[in-house]
Amino acid sequence: MSTDYKFVGWLGKDSDAVHGKMVWEEFEPKTWTEDDVDIEITHSGICGSDLHTLRSGWGPTLYPVCVGHEIVGKAVRVGKNNKKGIKVGDRVGVGAQSLSCLKPECEECSAGIENHCASMVGTYNGKYPDGSKSMGGYAMYHRAPSHFVFKIPDAIPSPDAAPMMCGGVTVYSPLKQNGCGPGKKVGIIGVGGLGHFGVLFAKAMGADKVVGISRNSNKRDDVLKMGADEYIATDDEPDWASKHAKTLDLIVCTVSSPKMPLMDYLSLLRVKGTFIQVGAPEDKLPDLTAFAFIGKGCKMGGSLIGAPSEIEEMLQLAADKKVKPWIQEVPMKDANKAIVDMEAGKARYRYTLVN
Amino acid sequence: MSTDYKFVGWLGKDSDAVHGKMVWEEFEPKTWTEDDVDIEITHSGICGSDLHTLRSGWGPTLYPVCVGHEIVGKAVRVGKNNKKGIKVGDRVGVGAQSLSCLKPECEECSAGIENHCASMVGTYNGKYPDGSKSMGGYAMYHRAPSHFVFKIPDAIPSPDAAPMMCGGVTVYSPLKQNGCGPGKKVGIIGVGGLGHFGVLFAKAMGADKVVGISRNSNKRDDVLKMGADEYIATDDEPDWASKHAKTLDLIVCTVSSPKMPLMDYLSLLRVKGTFIQVGAPEDKLPDLTAFAFIGKGCKMGGSLIGAPSEIEEMLQLAADKKVKPWIQEVPMKDANKAIVDMEAGKARYRYTLVN
Repeated sequence: MSTDYKFVGWLGKDSDAVHGKMVWEEFEPKTWTEDDVDIEITHSGICGSDLHTLRSGWGPTLYPVCVGHEIVGKAVRVGKNNKKGIKVGDRVGVGAQSLSCLKPECEECSAGIENHCASMVGTYNGKYPDGSKSMGGYAMYHRAPSHFVFKIPDAIPSPDAAPMMCGGVTVYSPLKQNGCGPGKKVGIIGVGGLGHFGVLFAKAMGADKVVGISRNSNKRDDVLKMGADEYIATDDEPDWASKHAKTLDLIVCTVSSPKMPLMDYLSLLRVKGTFIQVGAPEDKLPDLTAFAFIGKGCKMGGSLIGAPSEIEEMLQLAADKKVKPWIQEVPMKDANKAIVDMEAGKARYRYTLVN
Repeated sequence: MSTDYKFVGWLGKDSDAVHGKMVWEEFEPKTWTEDDVDIEITHSGICGSDLHTLRSGWGPTLYPVCVGHEIVGKAVRVGKNNKKGIKVGDRVGVGAQSLSCLKPECEECSAGIENHCASMVGTYNGKYPDGSKSMGGYAMYHRAPSHFVFKIPDAIPSPDAAPMMCGGVTVYSPLKQNGCGPGKKVGIIGVGGLGHFGVLFAKAMGADKVVGISRNSNKRDDVLKMGADEYIATDDEPDWASKHAKTLDLIVCTVSSPKMPLMDYLSLLRVKGTFIQVGAPEDKLPDLTAFAFIGKGCKMGGSLIGAPSEIEEMLQLAADKKVKPWIQEVPMKDANKAIVDMEAGKARYRYTLVN
């Protein structure tokens, strides 16, 4: 079966693309299989990963690349092997992951953490087993294996749902897995796209106290409006690390600059506290000593997007608790300007491209 | 009441002491209070901390210092405030911790993790609130607050019990807290005093598989005899990191050299695995990247000795499961030679000084 629609979108041809040099072109989607769903994209969030990938910051990118893995739209073709009850016309979303092996003998897939499967393929800049490339959501249409296509609850508007698909679950997952909820004091470091979801979800999950932590004061009012109980501006409070030492049970750090004051951040943890890094600096982490961990018996870890079940949980929580992300809608035609603005830190707090 | 015994032991006067230059002299014990117990020392283990402290490796030491915090002996005087039922004549032990605030408002003390109390005083090289110094176990007598004095189960010989008081619980605690037991594959890196306890306790706790990991092959036979299911000699297997990648749920690392191949060690963790550092390098840790944690959603943490309840649990487990440490008894008079041999890595696997 041929389709009466074309896969066309913004392509990065080389690392210069990150400077607003993507070009609008037709591209070849993944080879159709009866496991797949074709989506007419209505909304596509801009994620930090898009910038890292456009400039080959995490390693060589498979140019040409169509980035974007916070995709929402309408299912327009549904393969007959789809096991999730998706129907043509459904409003659906796709996050950062497109494929994993799903074999019973895979420890990760059988445990429902397909995001850690060794055969995981990203929604863009990946290769499927047949050699075709995964192409993302800065486009008119997207083709995705149905296991990683999710129905969007009616209560969540599409512009809000899009950035949840990666940015939202990337912070929801470590909050959930590390006990965020009543009785816990939670810090979110770096209040950008990911961090603002961190504040919103930590509150929605019922944490006793949520503290937004960022470099300067200019986001203070916003972060308190998002629901944070406190805000720390590290550039403006010289003694912030000692003043707030040992006050937080759990910290999720979204900073992706390798220059962050990591030892100072760890000093904010209470005894037995946990620090989860979700921002992925392109360079090595700042120096650490073993004493930072031993003295308080604390831990530092990482978290990678989220499991499919966590995406479903997060969407349901967002629907139930009326979580309202702060997003700015940008017409798809202005994607080049939007990525330049994103890189410049102008997003308040997430851009959603709109077709 | 004055005592008819004298506090005399091996004193380090400066950082040269670590080279076998401790001197046998009388010293002033902590000021007696009715919370205390005086112990006639029969056995005193030699811990790596003793060497770090003798050479001021973890910061300036309060010389003169009497090191040793793996103390076993006979209670010879018991303060009337002792709440643990200790009686004169009881066989008791003291580990690395001597005091904490024990106030109800202290989060750590009220949670039973006195080892993380901010007012924690070490068994040596510490200062009590009244200004008197804590002096350790390379001596004839030791005075310790009774909260940190433990009765030794009859089934454990004193030479074996001594090194459990710090070395044993330092690995028992992170194994226990991180789920060591049936269903888990556990690695112990660095099979010295601490590491050999790691192998013994991980087996006693019922781990599915215990892997000893050390630099060269010369400890292989010993480690397998201790009960390890497998041994990895990292100097002799060039591809050890890739060959054994993603095989372990939990790793306890006792290495205290800052030159260890930490990224390779982390590669041994399975998805969602945990790496706990208990060795405390005097320098910073090797370089790390965030990807080491994010890709597998794993964690690195630290652990500091153990809680009083964990010392009791460990002693009971050792008694029940007949855990038999590999120790070498050395007469107290030969303490200087023993610390030099310890520094040279000759211990197989822990020295216990004997009065």
